[in-house]
Amino acid sequence: MTTKNAFYAQSGGVTSVINASACGLIQTARLHSDKIGTVYAGLNGIIGALQEELIDTSFESDEAIAALRYTPAGAFGSCRYKLKSLDANRAEYERLIDVFKAHNIGYFFYNGGGDSQDTAHKVSQLGEQMGYPLTCIGVPKTVDNDLPITDNCAGFGSVAKYVAVSMREASFDVASMCATSTKVFVMEVMGRHAGWIAAAGALAADENHDIPLVILFPEIEFNESKFLAAVDEKVKSYGYCCVVVSEGVKNSEGQFLAEAGGKDAFGHAQLGGAAPVIANLIKQSLGYKYHWAVADYLQRAARHIASKNDVEQAFAVGKAAVEFALAGKNAVMPTIVRLSDAPYQWKIDSVDLKDVANVEKMMPSEFISENGFGITPACRAYLQPLIAGEDYPPYKNGLPDYVVLKKCVVAKKLPEFKV
Amino acid sequence: MTTKNAFYAQSGGVTSVINASACGLIQTARLHSDKIGTVYAGLNGIIGALQEELIDTSFESDEAIAALRYTPAGAFGSCRYKLKSLDANRAEYERLIDVFKAHNIGYFFYNGGGDSQDTAHKVSQLGEQMGYPLTCIGVPKTVDNDLPITDNCAGFGSVAKYVAVSMREASFDVASMCATSTKVFVMEVMGRHAGWIAAAGALAADENHDIPLVILFPEIEFNESKFLAAVDEKVKSYGYCCVVVSEGVKNSEGQFLAEAGGKDAFGHAQLGGAAPVIANLIKQSLGYKYHWAVADYLQRAARHIASKNDVEQAFAVGKAAVEFALAGKNAVMPTIVRLSDAPYQWKIDSVDLKDVANVEKMMPSEFISENGFGITPACRAYLQPLIAGEDYPPYKNGLPDYVVLKKCVVAKKLPEFKV
Repeated sequence: MTTKNAFYAQSGGVTSVINASACGLIQTARLHSDKIGTVYAGLNGIIGALQEELIDTSFESDEAIAALRYTPAGAFGSCRYKLKSLDANRAEYERLIDVFKAHNIGYFFYNGGGDSQDTAHKVSQLGEQMGYPLTCIGVPKTVDNDLPITDNCAGFGSVAKYVAVSMREASFDVASMCATSTKVFVMEVMGRHAGWIAAAGALAADENHDIPLVILFPEIEFNESKFLAAVDEKVKSYGYCCVVVSEGVKNSEGQFLAEAGGKDAFGHAQLGGAAPVIANLIKQSLGYKYHWAVADYLQRAARHIASKNDVEQAFAVGKAAVEFALAGKNAVMPTIVRLSDAPYQWKIDSVDLKDVANVEKMMPSEFISENGFGITPACRAYLQPLIAGEDYPPYKNGLPDYVVLKKCVVAKKLPEFKV
Repeated sequence: MTTKNAFYAQSGGVTSVINASACGLIQTARLHSDKIGTVYAGLNGIIGALQEELIDTSFESDEAIAALRYTPAGAFGSCRYKLKSLDANRAEYERLIDVFKAHNIGYFFYNGGGDSQDTAHKVSQLGEQMGYPLTCIGVPKTVDNDLPITDNCAGFGSVAKYVAVSMREASFDVASMCATSTKVFVMEVMGRHAGWIAAAGALAADENHDIPLVILFPEIEFNESKFLAAVDEKVKSYGYCCVVVSEGVKNSEGQFLAEAGGKDAFGHAQLGGAAPVIANLIKQSLGYKYHWAVADYLQRAARHIASKNDVEQAFAVGKAAVEFALAGKNAVMPTIVRLSDAPYQWKIDSVDLKDVANVEKMMPSEFISENGFGITPACRAYLQPLIAGEDYPPYKNGLPDYVVLKKCVVAKKLPEFKV
């Protein structure tokens, strides 16, 4: 087996553990330097490959690579850039192959969601057609937990933990104040299509913490009167109510609540913010004092409260990607297979990229409670292990001591390419 | 010294460590059961005293009281209820004294901000006038850090840590994405009058983390063009910019940005949300893609990321309150005195309540950088120790195992009283 270099890129919205996958991948590659030479990383994702901006990760110390395990977001930069279909823009795929050739890259590791798995799959096909065989391995990543086949996605467990912890804490706050002040607290969470993150909010309550929660899933069309009745019932019985609203909730006209046409103080279209819309609706209809929060990036960057299981799985899929490549697998993605709920046991397997690409996994209906505002015991059993365990980063001066890489970009060998 | 019972109440907006003060206070009282009999706690704060709804804390186990140290929000319930002046509503003060008499209460511990210290002071005066001498001790609490004389307030360090950690994490996220996506991230934080919490956002950056930050303090009138120029300069030089906006920022007409008259999708007045206003302004004026977050209750309930120094100080002021009472002090509040910055050393002292009541401590001008958008080295030296150290709660099933008390209310002895 001749030595080939590797290319690794982070794709799409980052997570608090995508760098843990990078850590697993680079550390494992370093153990096999007889087969994998330099690991290059795309500066800002796949755009780095197209523009031949390749970070030479061998300039990063072992300590820096180890620190990726506890550093959130994309240490090499990520991008939202979906390659078009092969027919529509074959030139982009050919450029990728040219860059890989120029830098003796034989391994392509693409760390992202459904779109990225699709890209990795196409690149593997094209490499073959162009007589430049490439080993293409997808590395799953998404806070949305919407990839098929794998039991869950690296990145989801930590955002789920953040949402569950935050909602439990906020519910304690509201419970303290509700006698004379705030009665409804609304928290908006991510998940434009799938309600997995919203579902995690329901974990705030358990057998020792009886917290009145109403969850709004993007899978369920928003029904104003039914929702208001549910909130009112909780306030009347508990004195307060906590609402988790997914950013993806739509009204009966199919519009996102967050984009249904409001104007801000400057007269500009109000962009984003399902939580204030829901909170105002409650105030106007039920008269309850409210507070609302929009966690936004805080939730997916919250490495300080990452799930230990999630960190371990993120590391494991990165490591497995290299091991699969070295074992001769191609056009596959590591998957997480659940062996048992309690005790939670899992292993890594693999799936062909063609079976993953462009399939979105929504919350199954048997995970949403009958009234549409909560989760079922089956959903709880599924979610619970994914948020389990803590994995704290090291701190310095009261703050997480996250690493910033050197990101040394190697000299270009090819003409410029316009993206 | 005869045995008298004690009354403890939590007041105003809760914090992630106010229960740590309750823990220090009740544990210390339990060590002195020869002098302090039962510690009663007001159900929902001072309203519990007025309505004679007294929680008998002796029904709470030692384990439950110990767990208050790591449980956020107000375990006995709090309220936003300011007693009027003695002239305006003497009946309320007399009712308090009547309830205290009926339950043989000789110690009044009031855990709150400036208003509460004022109330404790008045109750102490009135008790004397009515021939029912009471020992009244204030216990400082406020996320806003706006009490005078004490170097800082229990509750502030933890919200400051939450804001600094969250902003560091979010900045890593934005830095990853800014090449092709979000260029400006705006986070709204608490602090309607004083900018201490906003200032803490500046700690996200340090000598190892060069993060472009623009801070909007409530002490500084919002200047749109100067602000936009500052943001634009950061984006041009770093590729992105992070903005911390205090909920208390006002425009040149003296209106809160968050309440400057926007309408939501239902046509309702938009209440709250300086962050979306700022974000939209940036989009409209500079064209940059943005994200925004409003942390709201999440920040002040975030016991999972509390500052160790803050927890210790919250405990210490609760403990000191009882020790002062037993030492014969009256109408005082424990203060935190800074002995040195590095190493950080502090001790507890006391101040007369009359000197604390109704004085708000704003950010001094020498703590705000010349351009008005950052903090000075002096401010950093002040803030840094307050967020130092971690003090994690225990976890169960992936979530903090916060305690819920029994809250057994004793039988009433007096006629009803309308609040």
